Amino acid sequence: MAPSPTPHAQAIATDALVIGAGPVGLFQVFELGLQEIAAHMVDPLPHAGGQCAELYPDKPIYDIPGLPVVGGLELVQRLQQQSAPFKPTLHLGQLVSALQRLPDGRWHVETNAGTEFVARTVFIAAGAGAFLPRSVKLDGIDRHLGRQVLHQLPDAPPALAGLHVVVLGDEDPALDAAIALAAPGPQRPASVTLVHRRDSFRAAADTVARLQALRDSGALRFVAGQPMALVEGGPPTAPLQALDLLPVDGASQRLPTDLLLVLMGVSPRLGPIADWGMALHRRQVEVDTQAFQTSLPGVFAVGDINTYPGKKKLLLCGFHEATLAAFAAAAIVFPERRMPLQYTTTSTRLHALLGVAPAVDPPPGPPHSAGAADDNGA
Amino acid sequence: MAPSPTPHAQAIATDALVIGAGPVGLFQVFELGLQEIAAHMVDPLPHAGGQCAELYPDKPIYDIPGLPVVGGLELVQRLQQQSAPFKPTLHLGQLVSALQRLPDGRWHVETNAGTEFVARTVFIAAGAGAFLPRSVKLDGIDRHLGRQVLHQLPDAPPALAGLHVVVLGDEDPALDAAIALAAPGPQRPASVTLVHRRDSFRAAADTVARLQALRDSGALRFVAGQPMALVEGGPPTAPLQALDLLPVDGASQRLPTDLLLVLMGVSPRLGPIADWGMALHRRQVEVDTQAFQTSLPGVFAVGDINTYPGKKKLLLCGFHEATLAAFAAAAIVFPERRMPLQYTTTSTRLHALLGVAPAVDPPPGPPHSAGAADDNGA
Repeated sequence: MAPSPTPHAQAIATDALVIGAGPVGLFQVFELGLQEIAAHMVDPLPHAGGQCAELYPDKPIYDIPGLPVVGGLELVQRLQQQSAPFKPTLHLGQLVSALQRLPDGRWHVETNAGTEFVARTVFIAAGAGAFLPRSVKLDGIDRHLGRQVLHQLPDAPPALAGLHVVVLGDEDPALDAAIALAAPGPQRPASVTLVHRRDSFRAAADTVARLQALRDSGALRFVAGQPMALVEGGPPTAPLQALDLLPVDGASQRLPTDLLLVLMGVSPRLGPIADWGMALHRRQVEVDTQAFQTSLPGVFAVGDINTYPGKKKLLLCGFHEATLAAFAAAAIVFPERRMPLQYTTTSTRLHALLGVAPAVDPPPGPPHSAGAADDNGA
Repeated sequence: MAPSPTPHAQAIATDALVIGAGPVGLFQVFELGLQEIAAHMVDPLPHAGGQCAELYPDKPIYDIPGLPVVGGLELVQRLQQQSAPFKPTLHLGQLVSALQRLPDGRWHVETNAGTEFVARTVFIAAGAGAFLPRSVKLDGIDRHLGRQVLHQLPDAPPALAGLHVVVLGDEDPALDAAIALAAPGPQRPASVTLVHRRDSFRAAADTVARLQALRDSGALRFVAGQPMALVEGGPPTAPLQALDLLPVDGASQRLPTDLLLVLMGVSPRLGPIADWGMALHRRQVEVDTQAFQTSLPGVFAVGDINTYPGKKKLLLCGFHEATLAAFAAAAIVFPERRMPLQYTTTSTRLHALLGVAPAVDPPPGPPHSAGAADDNGA
């Protein structure tokens, strides 16, 4: 591990940082709240809900206990409502990058937007990982990333007149970009080439039709092939000049390339989390089953991202994991606290935290009520 | 363990027997159903829902994930609805008594109503235990149980004329019984004596007032004291004759007793489960955290009755435990099955089991949908 960093003065001090604002992350905030631990949340998506809201907003889920059927988005909304009393501070559209331990045992966490946290406990609720752009394996491609290799068409495209642009991909984003670039205008590139391994596309029919019209008119061209190597003008620091494709029918092709747009969709990836020094097993974070703590003290992993004997990637399991992790966090944040398990049904302390009116007193005297009041299993 | 029993021919053969029809038992049935395992259920109460429906029907619960607030009875109804597609067979008003392993590895289970099961897997979801009548510790009391010692006033009371009746208890059931017995009529006992350690009662005010009126009229009497010993007429098989109370102010008291009504309420108790040979810790059943299996193979314990490192007696934890136990049961019931984890959101097999219409196909082609379709975390 690198030497301990010195956090900047503007770093946000927090008892808990939750990485991932999907269903399990949201319930993590709720369970932390019951422990009187306020949380900050970071998520790379521009809204809470994670994969569940992103990919399955309307699809029914049948195995959340007590919800015979619920849509992905509705579940997220319910969990947001449930965690609302604890007012998490959300930092959306940000990807965590570095995590390092401070001499006092707290964790210094940074995001790619420059936000810094100093957290006593960290909860990785990152699901299948952050949804990052799929890349293409080409030696040296990282050197050009953000300059001549891009994963999205910039909102304000650079001056492209006279340049050769190559677009990789076979779905709507790639086709849309190629079509937009080929539009007539002063910034129209010298050439626009769409590359995919075969001449067939997973895109909307009208998009494919527009593409075909532009191909027919010669405004852009399609080349079937698979990227093999980048061609640079000289030493490794030199600019990108061309893209070589794997030989087809014995002949290889070299496409002049000033800008390479890699628009091959997104895929969930562990991202920088893989570099934090936690014990991993098949790209899952190993945790114990008592506190769902990783091999780093005070860093917990809950939900689909973790693994332990018997692990099933089910939301309801993530909810359990988040609950036990919250209890373990309380032992870190409040080391002096000694408190029996309290129930939301009966605890006036929890009612105050939840901001709900105290429950009506039970009716007087069924003979069994006293003995079970502290043990109602809810 | 006793020699293996020979189950009667009428024993019910089942893949799964769930002991306890509370929230966790109901969700156990649901998760077993997703594994294509049909279940029988046994519960000592006359209805499903367990303690949750019995003691907290209207009290709000705030910590079920996705249900910001839900009453105990509503939660039970939701779980019944959720498990309904799997049509569990309920055996209510019955307490499990014996459990013994058969030579073929299955489990023979009997109830106090004489129902017998031969089950491949057993799930103990008995919460805090069965709600059994509280008793009083007196040597030899069990010999008289059901004859001269009763835990409830019989619906058709025996001929009590000329007999001495002692009632133990300080809550409504004890007071109600004493008041009823003292009513004028041909079957009125020779004496009715209410015994409690002090002259104060946890009962409805008007009940206490009626008791006082009968005490004032001499129709019954109250004695402050604590039962010390039963007095029998001769050998241990002889009938009960009197009850000795601990000395108060130096003088002990002997109450002539032909019938002793012990009406001290009910308390949750492990009951016969404690005698099944499972490893226990502080009267909780020890389980692993991979399958929530007890020390008996094929016998699982889920919910408040089990214990493991980190255990919290919360319903949402019981739901997780029931889920992993169901997967483990599937490995016993279907040892040849090899199946990747399926999701209720996407699996047509699970949709068929649940009896729901197949989900609408996803809209064509957002670039990320294909990669995550088998991994939606629900």
